[in-house]
Amino acid sequence: MEISNKLLIFFRYLRVKIKDIKMFKNLVKQIPKFNVYYKNQLVKSLSSMTSDSPMKYNACMKHPNEAVIFRQLVDNATYTYTYILADLKTREAVIIDPVYEKVERDVELINQLELKLKYALNTHVHADHITGSGRLKNFVPNIKSMISEASKAKADIHIKEGDKIQFGNEFLHVLATPGHTNGCLTYVSHTAKIAFTGDALLIRGCGRTDFQQGSSDTLYDSIHDKILSLPDEYSVFPGHDYVGRTSSSIGEEKRFNPRLTQKKKEFIETMKNLNLVYPRLMDVAVPANLVCGIQEPSGDNKPEN
Amino acid sequence: MEISNKLLIFFRYLRVKIKDIKMFKNLVKQIPKFNVYYKNQLVKSLSSMTSDSPMKYNACMKHPNEAVIFRQLVDNATYTYTYILADLKTREAVIIDPVYEKVERDVELINQLELKLKYALNTHVHADHITGSGRLKNFVPNIKSMISEASKAKADIHIKEGDKIQFGNEFLHVLATPGHTNGCLTYVSHTAKIAFTGDALLIRGCGRTDFQQGSSDTLYDSIHDKILSLPDEYSVFPGHDYVGRTSSSIGEEKRFNPRLTQKKKEFIETMKNLNLVYPRLMDVAVPANLVCGIQEPSGDNKPEN
Repeated sequence: MEISNKLLIFFRYLRVKIKDIKMFKNLVKQIPKFNVYYKNQLVKSLSSMTSDSPMKYNACMKHPNEAVIFRQLVDNATYTYTYILADLKTREAVIIDPVYEKVERDVELINQLELKLKYALNTHVHADHITGSGRLKNFVPNIKSMISEASKAKADIHIKEGDKIQFGNEFLHVLATPGHTNGCLTYVSHTAKIAFTGDALLIRGCGRTDFQQGSSDTLYDSIHDKILSLPDEYSVFPGHDYVGRTSSSIGEEKRFNPRLTQKKKEFIETMKNLNLVYPRLMDVAVPANLVCGIQEPSGDNKPEN
Repeated sequence: MEISNKLLIFFRYLRVKIKDIKMFKNLVKQIPKFNVYYKNQLVKSLSSMTSDSPMKYNACMKHPNEAVIFRQLVDNATYTYTYILADLKTREAVIIDPVYEKVERDVELINQLELKLKYALNTHVHADHITGSGRLKNFVPNIKSMISEASKAKADIHIKEGDKIQFGNEFLHVLATPGHTNGCLTYVSHTAKIAFTGDALLIRGCGRTDFQQGSSDTLYDSIHDKILSLPDEYSVFPGHDYVGRTSSSIGEEKRFNPRLTQKKKEFIETMKNLNLVYPRLMDVAVPANLVCGIQEPSGDNKPEN
C-alpha cells in the first residue's frame, strides 16, 4: 500500500479533525531535507482529506478499521462460516464459502446492505456441506462462481496462487494452501488485514488430511510458508470452528496452535492418528461441489437426503 | 487519547520499520515553527518505539479500530453469544454472558490472550442456558459476578442504569432496557462503538415478552428510547441469533428490524401472537441464574439433566 493510502486510513481511523490535518499539512510542507516525491504525495493526501467525502455516511456498515464492509455468518448445522466482504464506496462484494441452505439469509442481508455481489468464492471442494455458489445464481444475476484450477471442479472462473480478485477498489489476494485438499486456497485482504483460511488453518487446529488428496506433509508447508508468514496482527477467519470461536489472529496461531507449533515429523504423526469419522454429507456434498453447487440458474441439483 | 498514543498505535498498525521511525524522529526534530510541547511529546513517543517495547507484541489481539481486545464466542447448543472485551494496555477484561458449559473454552482463550478477567457480566436472568458467571470463580480468583438490581438475582455486584463498569482505562456504560425481563441491561462501549444488547434487541428481532415479567409495551420503549437512539454506526452484538448472523448495526436495525419498525400498537399485537414454545431449560436455568450460576467457588450447582 502506498504511504498516502496508509495516511488516509490513519487519519480516518483517528478521526482527526479537519483543522488538525490542515495544520499537519503545513508542517509537512516545511520539513527540510525531505524527499520531494514523498512530501508531495503526503501533501496531496492531506489535501484530499480536507474536502468533504461521501465515505462518512456509510459508517454503520463498514469494518471498523477500513473502507470495507465485512460480515461473518454461521451455519449451525455444519459449523461452517460464510463471509461477505464489500468495497464500501462502490458496494461491489464477494461472498466466501456460502452454504446451500443459507442462500436466502445471505441474499437478504446483501440486498439490505445494498451490495452488488460479483463473485461467489469457494476456498475448496467441501466435503461437509453443499456450496451455495450455484444456488446463488437463482437470486443474483451475473454472479460468477470461483474455485481453484487445482481443485479440478467446474466453475465460471478458475483461480490460482498470485491472482487478485477485484471488487470495486478492493482486492483479495489468492494463496495456494493445499494439504487438506489439492485445491485449497486462502484469500487475503490486506485492507481488512484478514486471511480467510478455509479448512487449511483452523483456530488452534487445521483441516483433516485423510481424504480428498489430503497430505499432512503438504499442509504443514502450506500453513507455515503461506499463512503463518503473514503479519502477526492479521485476523484469521476460518472455514469452521467446532467449539464456537469466531476468529483468531496469525500471532495467536503461531504461538498457540497445538498442531502447527509441532515439528513437521510430529505433525504428520498427529494427523495420522486422528481417527476421524467419515463426514456425514461427503458422498452428496463432494459431487455437488465439484460443479460449484449448480451451474445453471434454472436447475437445482440438491440431492434428496 | 494523547497524540503520542495515537502515533504509537499508528506506527504499530503500519508495521513501520525501526529505522524509518528513527528517520522520522530526526525529521520531526527539524520541523521549524512547531509547538515545543507537541514536538517533545512526539520525539519521546518515537524514542520509546525504537526501544524494545512490550506493547508491540499485542497488536495481534486488538479490535481493529481501537485500544480494546474484542472476541465473540458462540454456544452452538443454545445459539448464545458470549463476549470478551479487554483494555489493551492494562489487560483488564470483562466477559459478557458466559455459558456454563463453555467456561473452560473461555478461560483458555483469556489465559492465552494474557487477560486479567475482572467481571462476569450478565445482561439478564437467562431462561435458555445457565450462566457461567458462577462457575468462572473456580478458574479465575477474585472475579466478580454482575447483574442488574432490578433482576432480583443474587450477584457480587448489582448494577443499574447510568453505572459505568471500569476495566483498565475502558468503560462499559449501563443502560436499563427492560421488557424481555424486568432486569435486562444493555452494555455500551463507546470506544469500540458496540452495544451488547442481550435479549432486548436481537438482529432483525427482539426477545420474547411472554414470561419472566415480560412486557412488549416496555420493551418497545426500551429499544427505541435507549438502544436505537445510539449512533447509526454502532455495532449491535446481541445475546443470540438463531440463523447464524453474528452482528448488526444500529442503522440497520432502525431500517430493517421487522418488529421494531412497526408502530407500538402493531408491535404489541405481533408479540402477542408469536406462540413460542416453553424454553427447554427454563425450569433449571432460571433458578440457577437467579444466583448468577453459583456463588461459591467450591460449589457446583449444575442440575443433573
